[in-house]
Amino acid sequence: MQTKHSIYESGLEVTAANYAALTPLSFAERTAAIYPELTAVVYGDLRRTWGETYERMCRIASALAGRGLGKDDTVSVIAANIPEMFEAHFAVPMIGAVLNTVNTRLDAEAIAFILSHAEAKAVLVDPEFSDVVERAIKISGRRDMLVIDIEDASYDGGHRIGSVTYDELLAEGDPEFRYVPPESEWDAISLNYTSGTTGNPKGVVYHHRGAALNAMSNIMTWGMAHHSRYLWTLPMFHCNGWCFPWTIAANAGVCVCLRAVRAEPIYEAIRNEKVTHFCGAPIVLNMLANAPDELKDFSHQVKVMTAGASPPAAVIEKMEAMGVEVTHVYGLTETYGPSVVCAWKGAWNARTAEERARLKARQGVRNLALAGLMVADPETLMPVPSDGETLGEIFMRGNNVMKGYLKNPTATDESFNGGWFASGDLGVMHPDGYVELKDRSKDIIISGGENISSVEVEDVLYKHPAVMEAAVVARPDPKWGETPCAFVELKPGQELEEAELIAFCRQNMAHFKTPKTVVYGPLPKTSTGKIQKFLLRDQARALNETK
Amino acid sequence: MQTKHSIYESGLEVTAANYAALTPLSFAERTAAIYPELTAVVYGDLRRTWGETYERMCRIASALAGRGLGKDDTVSVIAANIPEMFEAHFAVPMIGAVLNTVNTRLDAEAIAFILSHAEAKAVLVDPEFSDVVERAIKISGRRDMLVIDIEDASYDGGHRIGSVTYDELLAEGDPEFRYVPPESEWDAISLNYTSGTTGNPKGVVYHHRGAALNAMSNIMTWGMAHHSRYLWTLPMFHCNGWCFPWTIAANAGVCVCLRAVRAEPIYEAIRNEKVTHFCGAPIVLNMLANAPDELKDFSHQVKVMTAGASPPAAVIEKMEAMGVEVTHVYGLTETYGPSVVCAWKGAWNARTAEERARLKARQGVRNLALAGLMVADPETLMPVPSDGETLGEIFMRGNNVMKGYLKNPTATDESFNGGWFASGDLGVMHPDGYVELKDRSKDIIISGGENISSVEVEDVLYKHPAVMEAAVVARPDPKWGETPCAFVELKPGQELEEAELIAFCRQNMAHFKTPKTVVYGPLPKTSTGKIQKFLLRDQARALNETK
Ligand SMILES: Nc1ncnc2c1ncn2[C@@H]1O[C@H](COP(=O)(O)OP(=O)(O)OP(=O)(O)O)[C@@H](O)[C@H]1O
Ligand SMILES: Nc1ncnc2c1ncn2[C@@H]1O[C@H](COP(=O)(O)OP(=O)(O)OP(=O)(O)O)[C@@H](O)[C@H]1O
Ligand SMILES: [Mg+2]
Ligand SMILES: [Mg+2]
Repeated sequence: MQTKHSIYESGLEVTAANYAALTPLSFAERTAAIYPELTAVVYGDLRRTWGETYERMCRIASALAGRGLGKDDTVSVIAANIPEMFEAHFAVPMIGAVLNTVNTRLDAEAIAFILSHAEAKAVLVDPEFSDVVERAIKISGRRDMLVIDIEDASYDGGHRIGSVTYDELLAEGDPEFRYVPPESEWDAISLNYTSGTTGNPKGVVYHHRGAALNAMSNIMTWGMAHHSRYLWTLPMFHCNGWCFPWTIAANAGVCVCLRAVRAEPIYEAIRNEKVTHFCGAPIVLNMLANAPDELKDFSHQVKVMTAGASPPAAVIEKMEAMGVEVTHVYGLTETYGPSVVCAWKGAWNARTAEERARLKARQGVRNLALAGLMVADPETLMPVPSDGETLGEIFMRGNNVMKGYLKNPTATDESFNGGWFASGDLGVMHPDGYVELKDRSKDIIISGGENISSVEVEDVLYKHPAVMEAAVVARPDPKWGETPCAFVELKPGQELEEAELIAFCRQNMAHFKTPKTVVYGPLPKTSTGKIQKFLLRDQARALNETK
Repeated sequence: MQTKHSIYESGLEVTAANYAALTPLSFAERTAAIYPELTAVVYGDLRRTWGETYERMCRIASALAGRGLGKDDTVSVIAANIPEMFEAHFAVPMIGAVLNTVNTRLDAEAIAFILSHAEAKAVLVDPEFSDVVERAIKISGRRDMLVIDIEDASYDGGHRIGSVTYDELLAEGDPEFRYVPPESEWDAISLNYTSGTTGNPKGVVYHHRGAALNAMSNIMTWGMAHHSRYLWTLPMFHCNGWCFPWTIAANAGVCVCLRAVRAEPIYEAIRNEKVTHFCGAPIVLNMLANAPDELKDFSHQVKVMTAGASPPAAVIEKMEAMGVEVTHVYGLTETYGPSVVCAWKGAWNARTAEERARLKARQGVRNLALAGLMVADPETLMPVPSDGETLGEIFMRGNNVMKGYLKNPTATDESFNGGWFASGDLGVMHPDGYVELKDRSKDIIISGGENISSVEVEDVLYKHPAVMEAAVVARPDPKWGETPCAFVELKPGQELEEAELIAFCRQNMAHFKTPKTVVYGPLPKTSTGKIQKFLLRDQARALNETK
């Protein structure tokens, strides 16, 4: 190695003038300073401006600081998509504390586990969840935690379980408080537990740098104009709402908050609040697509971003038929939510609706914040050929990959093996450089030595007009090793023979991929709306035993 | 200071999987990988895709490396806004070298000074500038520099002065070359000399981090959709075209290149290439606004970003009357070009055209990449009151403030005093938080103890229908200390008595601000099109001597 004198090496150091830690906190500060009079939050009849909202964030931050909270203290929150939940995304990190949004659909034991594991010093509680959180706190034994009751005039029910209310904190807080920028942009900003689809949830730690970059990347993924009107259908507890609280702050947009994720209030908000953008898992899109037509009464342009599971082509087709532009993204809790996007090409608009939906069902390419994306052999890390066929594991690297798993260096090290983050998802690389996810490593079905992607089989099942939801898992088989077993929920009032559905499948896919068994009934889901295949696998296995 | 154990402190370190240096190089790599078939560059009849353009970047990068260039070597380029100039913005930093774009309007001595000061190891030369660069190289004595001739079939003239042509480099380069990501995002990416409006040009060093962040910020400032069609009217040699080569790469847009910045080819390109965005100094907008009406033949939406000098309200009004949406930004070479934006508010659309133009003539608020902006007393750094009246100096801080001045630690330290970058511009802070630039510190006129902003007086002069261009400077005065002296160039064929113009001014501003002298004639400009007030000040001073 040759060392040479460089004129760029001296006199050009970092100073306070030319370096600032990246943080999404600055987005809210900037938007509130520039557009204090614009609407930040809508919730039912409630409307608050950016000026008011930012003042509330400052008050909560300073009140929390006043009660002894600060750097690296975990502040948990269990809340629906209400204004206080949005405010917490800024108020908590404003004092260097770490926001831990807890999945609202968890039971008391699971919440207790998280509060303990996260070593939460304070918890903000939405009245809808006061009962379960009260129990969780008891179970967790964290009795000296500061418990803060959020009050919601529009919600009927719940009861006070804490020592102070959110509004009391607001009153004791300082509206002139100025947030402490993070000492380092690598400082933790939030802690998100994974969905627990494949096992126990793990605590994923985000930093200010990644949050800021992924939030900006969201704007660029969507090519967003200023002042979007964003509807909160995606839970903010899930990967911090895919970083959208920070995105909307940077975009000087409007958060249209919503407690209930049902078709009626969603369509009502889209119509009345002129919503321009929203996000949701495919299951939410499916619900919206299958809602009564009279609800779908709007004419302005609406865009939806979907991820969390493979969106069945049929669901994409239905949304687009309604005039809603679907952007398909992909990511994990570990990648700040969406870090991969099926970047759409104008030339594809000329294809048939079915081809378009098939192209769009692919997971795609890295977003602007992600540095690398590959499909590779998990042993050698050698990329698979870009043939759209060879299965490999999906790997990512970049600034929107988590700091790591909290208090779990072993899991962290394992997933960061070789300078890449191993997603645990299996996919193929298409010749055009787009990734397509075929299955989770744990969900792939191996029948007679052939890989069968459960996702592919499900995609065909969703095409049958009587099918509402479907999931396919491996059923042990003495001859083939495993065979595909379909669990299907029909649309209300529909009937369909097992043989008829299997025949439909045979017409639409290779025979060896066709489900050999169909089981009807509702599907078990995780709290983020994902189908719990490990439970279905147990059921499939049990079929053999009873047989 | 209390130290406490933090669960966020261990097991969550930086690894190759979760950290990547920010760099705009990744934007071009990403866009070329996703959209290889989309147009990247248009230049006359020439059209190249992103795939082709990225391959050319890789070839040039590897050819330069093959010739011994690498980390921290300065590679200068003297070129109009042609495709090779765009490519150099990626090819040069791809090998860790530093791109030094040289102002094409400089004379041989000034270019020689830059080549020497920058210690250029190679220089890329557009045939239009072969003569002047040949002389500059002789003067500089840098005879072992690698001189590379760019060839341009569409340009008549010039001659080879180097040892190799750009096309020969392309041929020897490796199309499969993969760029070396910067070791640190703080590594230098480019070297831009200031315009020299107030004295000798200084060499401003940018880093990869700032370039990436300001490039992304440009997208968000404009709320850009994907695939913009960007016309190169702003010289790429000026602050790296305000970071727009990198912005267009991130945006997967089209660079419409243009050698000559004249009204006819500009309007032609807007019409034929369906240009959606362009940038230019107010003087360029003025030229466009005053061009023959028959040229202004387009109906699609066009947006222009303007900075470099205060845009006279009259110029803004005329552009908007033509249907071109003007975004007024402000910045310095030291701040990667635009770092402040007059963020527009929908509510202002209801104002009169004149009021709108007045609001828009203000410089505004920090862009998303800038961490801080203030108007303060340069001695104490205490912010002035937000009264729209109290004059102070404009200060910035953040990631889009330069690394520093090359080989000039004294100037760097001076400008970074107190954790802020001192812009040398004077302005006021309005009650709504928008900064308005009143003058450069060096240009302010002090008459009878009162500050007179030359910009304000010029703004009135521009309102007179016969006035083409105007500049106001201080003329020494025995009684008042200084009085405003106006230098005016009239529109072709127009006549206007000095007394008549002074009377017009008296009707439109406070009497003490009215110019006492008017001098007619063309105005001396810097090579970036800025009026050289120091020359006019000499002239004004000379008036006293001849009198
Ligand atoms: N667009 C998508 N298409 C297909 N699958 C997706 C998509 N987006 C996300 N997923 C699936 O969701 C997973 C990420 O989900 P999340 O981080 O919420 O928790 P989980 O992986 O479901 O739970 P756990 O990690 O605890 O088992 C991905 O690994 C992938 O399997
Ligand atoms: N929107 C604007 N309104 C008014 N003035 C502007 C605007 N944008 C830029 N300027 C002026 O341009 C200056 C920055 O120009 P640049 O960095 O090109 O070199 P310069 O300052 O003209 O030259 P030098 O620093 O060598 O004297 C600012 O300091 C400001 O005076
Ligand atoms: Mg997972
Ligand atoms: Mg300057």
